[in-house]
Amino acid sequence: MDWKLSSRPHHTLQAQIVARITERIEHGDWAAGTRLPAQRELAMRFGVNRSTVQAALDELKADGLLETRQGSGAYVSGSAWNALLARSQPNWQRHIRASVHRPNRHTIRLINESEPDPSFIRLGTGELSPELLPAEQLQRSLHDLKLDARTLGYSEPLGSLRLRSAVRTRLEGLGIHAQPDNICIVSGALQALQLISVGLLEDGSTVFHESASYLNSVHPFQSAGMRMLTFRPGSDVQERLARAGRGRQSLLYAVPALNNPTGRSWNEKERKTVYDACSDLRIPIVEDDVYRDLLFAPGLPPIKASDSSGQVLYLGSLSKSLSPGLRIGWIVAPSPVIARLADVKMQTDYGSSAFSQEIAAHWLESGLYAHHAEQLRSKLQARASFAEQALHDRLGEFADWQTPEGGFYIWLRFLHPIVNKGFFRRLLDRKVLINPGYIYAPDDLHHIRFSCAYASQEEMISGLDILREEVIRSLSNPNR
Amino acid sequence: MDWKLSSRPHHTLQAQIVARITERIEHGDWAAGTRLPAQRELAMRFGVNRSTVQAALDELKADGLLETRQGSGAYVSGSAWNALLARSQPNWQRHIRASVHRPNRHTIRLINESEPDPSFIRLGTGELSPELLPAEQLQRSLHDLKLDARTLGYSEPLGSLRLRSAVRTRLEGLGIHAQPDNICIVSGALQALQLISVGLLEDGSTVFHESASYLNSVHPFQSAGMRMLTFRPGSDVQERLARAGRGRQSLLYAVPALNNPTGRSWNEKERKTVYDACSDLRIPIVEDDVYRDLLFAPGLPPIKASDSSGQVLYLGSLSKSLSPGLRIGWIVAPSPVIARLADVKMQTDYGSSAFSQEIAAHWLESGLYAHHAEQLRSKLQARASFAEQALHDRLGEFADWQTPEGGFYIWLRFLHPIVNKGFFRRLLDRKVLINPGYIYAPDDLHHIRFSCAYASQEEMISGLDILREEVIRSLSNPNR
Repeated sequence: MDWKLSSRPHHTLQAQIVARITERIEHGDWAAGTRLPAQRELAMRFGVNRSTVQAALDELKADGLLETRQGSGAYVSGSAWNALLARSQPNWQRHIRASVHRPNRHTIRLINESEPDPSFIRLGTGELSPELLPAEQLQRSLHDLKLDARTLGYSEPLGSLRLRSAVRTRLEGLGIHAQPDNICIVSGALQALQLISVGLLEDGSTVFHESASYLNSVHPFQSAGMRMLTFRPGSDVQERLARAGRGRQSLLYAVPALNNPTGRSWNEKERKTVYDACSDLRIPIVEDDVYRDLLFAPGLPPIKASDSSGQVLYLGSLSKSLSPGLRIGWIVAPSPVIARLADVKMQTDYGSSAFSQEIAAHWLESGLYAHHAEQLRSKLQARASFAEQALHDRLGEFADWQTPEGGFYIWLRFLHPIVNKGFFRRLLDRKVLINPGYIYAPDDLHHIRFSCAYASQEEMISGLDILREEVIRSLSNPNR
Repeated sequence: MDWKLSSRPHHTLQAQIVARITERIEHGDWAAGTRLPAQRELAMRFGVNRSTVQAALDELKADGLLETRQGSGAYVSGSAWNALLARSQPNWQRHIRASVHRPNRHTIRLINESEPDPSFIRLGTGELSPELLPAEQLQRSLHDLKLDARTLGYSEPLGSLRLRSAVRTRLEGLGIHAQPDNICIVSGALQALQLISVGLLEDGSTVFHESASYLNSVHPFQSAGMRMLTFRPGSDVQERLARAGRGRQSLLYAVPALNNPTGRSWNEKERKTVYDACSDLRIPIVEDDVYRDLLFAPGLPPIKASDSSGQVLYLGSLSKSLSPGLRIGWIVAPSPVIARLADVKMQTDYGSSAFSQEIAAHWLESGLYAHHAEQLRSKLQARASFAEQALHDRLGEFADWQTPEGGFYIWLRFLHPIVNKGFFRRLLDRKVLINPGYIYAPDDLHHIRFSCAYASQEEMISGLDILREEVIRSLSNPNR
């Protein structure tokens, strides 16, 4: 909305505010049931006193356009709608409530909405700080792109052959032998999960994942009606999978290298136990390997590299290591599976950005990517050391954690179960954004996912100072 | 697969072919049930005689790795799988058959798979010929992009504010008054339909569309379990919608300007009839307006421009007029609807390519787009005239059509119902790709969607010569 009010004398500020809000309602921008911003926010945005806003809202309430709900501010009135408009508009809220896809959890939506606001200190963000993104090199590399007209058309179902060939070469280096028709380019690994969900699973299938899991913070499987169950890569995994998955289609999702959110990598034994169990039970494994290039020291090869039976669907991405804005990732799988997923992708978005695919291919082919990834790893390692010291100084008495082996995250464990929604909100009010453990493991009130990759040193210190204060506050009043 | 065989004397060509195919099966690239390419294709690819291929396949059949199905070639055998592999792989075909998302119809998959092959003459393709894409200007414009590091991160849920502002300005010019929070950037209009489908409709909702409809060639609603019903923008529309939609959530989809596939635009009366009916019944309208910039003469404004009740969801795109490879489109809707769709998009692919968004914003802001669109319209008009003359000369006695008012398509109507799957396949075998009417209207055997926008003049002539021959063949033997 245009927040700037005019200062012409015959339009009072109050009348102008009334007109602006009425206009939004008339145009259907604010539908029945929409909650208005808080009075203090409206006052700030319009640049007027709060009393002027209050008077305007009172007028709108008197006209029946707004209504108050106890303790939670002003809403666009449902009943008054018809009075204002000649015709009624569709009941959007009912549409939204009844629809197929689940809404993001409230905390996750608050995080998504707050992240673009630069006034927040982001202590948990799962992406690289702008200073770690090779913006200048990317800009320069645009000059080297040779766009030919064919590449600007609709993509082939599997994605650009040039990019798939570059990915194939990269996979060879990891011990994965794939052909271009075993590779489908996707708009990031999240889209890969979405395609697998609707393209390979039936309604009511079981998806196994670790108990603290990225899959709890996004819902590609839940929204398609899958049943989510946890497993641990321990000796009883086969029994668990067999018992829980009985009679249903199943799939197992894992991030064996640098798990999100815990930062842990599976050891040789854990990998073998899970792979063998899945082999015996014919359960496909989705190996989400998007953090691989951020391992500080070379780790174990991907599970896919020793997959002799084609049961591993392997996911890679440039989002964590080059630029999330590229939206480029890939799935590696047997060719009939790839053909199926590509078919679903064609029905979903007709392929990924040709520009992004050209840039990605250029970076992989030219060595720009390998060089950048090497520098990035050492910068991330330096950040991790700094973060550990800062955590030790400020939270050492309240929490413990493992030294990270790569990637972005430290899975901070508080000794007391203080990380609840109130804790998150208090920090949000103080402009510190954390990723609480409960968005990854619903019953977890002990952890937060701390990211070393986003906040600057100064921000980290200020953020941790505030975090410390709120920890102390929670501990001194456990009922909050 | 690596098709190049070595000429070392101790590896016969037959043994090498056996080894290559075995390897593909072992790696799970060719799963049980996969159909092998035809013998003549394998022979061509390997560069050997067909008899060598046949001998290799016979050997693989004897080993139980392949099996023959009568009249349809060689398949990877299901039973032999276990013999070859120590462990069995997941039954991918079962996964695929049982999964949530519908496969594309066979004809559509054949079209998608054949389009990238340059040996085909594409008479129906719904995209601009490479020569109509401004590849050079796009390449040059990359030099003017200023990528800052923030734009390379994950997108805001609604998409880049810069691009939304540029879209907003464009919408103003069409009489649509929107705010940036009424706009969500999507990866093309097809993704918009996908988001609307899972974000605003419940399972079993009714989606109304015209009888020849783009929605029959993609399945964003069908795959989410919606019931598809047709309507006509005639005087009985209200009755039809009321009767058929009774007791269910409904939505109406239309392309009022230059419908795909018919190329028709609604007149004033048709627009009003549909809008009023939907208003009365509170049925949201999806106005798919992706062809607007290709109208040869200014048409009626978008329905959205006179939508006083916020019931129209408006879709725009740069795919038809600038570059499909950009994958950039937008949805315009009331802000609670936009917030919901953006939330679903964040769960689907975390936003569209930042690079594509920057390029799109730059083209819209700088006037490059407006200038290009103007030139494109006159080129398309010239192509349409040429196509009409060529059609008249070759098919004038067999078919009729309306002179196009813009866009890509001529909805060619054959006087006899000859456009069946056999007709399509015969043309496919002769390397002429058409878009038969039955992919847009299942019972239609009269039409093909002829596109003026893709084939060159020479290709159009050669393609139409072949088309004419096949038409005559069909007419002389109506039982084919």
